[in-house]
Amino acid sequence: MDMQLDTLKFDAAGLIPAIVQDERGEVLALYYMNRDAVARTIETGKVHTYSRSRKKLTMKGETSGHVEHVKSLRADCDRDALLIRVEQVGGACHEGYYSCFYREHQPGDDADWKDVGRRVFDPKDVYK
Amino acid sequence: MDMQLDTLKFDAAGLIPAIVQDERGEVLALYYMNRDAVARTIETGKVHTYSRSRKKLTMKGETSGHVEHVKSLRADCDRDALLIRVEQVGGACHEGYYSCFYREHQPGDDADWKDVGRRVFDPKDVYK
Repeated sequence: MDMQLDTLKFDAAGLIPAIVQDERGEVLALYYMNRDAVARTIETGKVHTYSRSRKKLTMKGETSGHVEHVKSLRADCDRDALLIRVEQVGGACHEGYYSCFYREHQPGDDADWKDVGRRVFDPKDVYK
Repeated sequence: MDMQLDTLKFDAAGLIPAIVQDERGEVLALYYMNRDAVARTIETGKVHTYSRSRKKLTMKGETSGHVEHVKSLRADCDRDALLIRVEQVGGACHEGYYSCFYREHQPGDDADWKDVGRRVFDPKDVYK
């Protein structure tokens, strides 16, 4: 496993961005991982992230149960970004949406971002 | 357009990460944009990025002709990441691959990252 980790490039803060995508191709979230989070993600097959605000390594779904089961990992040409295919339990977004990317804008449209997301749970029921 | 820009959160360096995905769902690249790059992307309908190493705003495909035509933009829950659906001309990766994410690793596999990418052009022909 060190072989995969040692070739990745972490930024000055020790982080690498990780795009999470489901098996149908829907992009669910962009996370940041430190080296430990990548190692735990590979070891356990469950997405682990590093919270920059809380300075803490957590398993995605630890509180909510909305675990992300890893199917495969990809690294980009510069080895400084990851793309992780997952099977998503529940929803990825802490606001109750299936995907964090629930605000849309069409070029040429003057309106503000539109909520086009799919709500799959009520955060009040999940984060007590 | 300012309305869409003013609600986005740029980091301390003035940047926001932008995931680029084609219409079939394939993730092509992760870029960084400054405010100008987001504005130009929305105005022109073509992806513009900010190169952190060259400290320069460029239109994707300026040299290679491999332009990315914007279909829609999404912002995530925290408004600090973008997801851009595009029609990709040629390939997104400067190494000649359709997608920058061409190295794959399966959890449980001890081997190094495997090249699973689709080569669509020869960089030697494109970047002279």
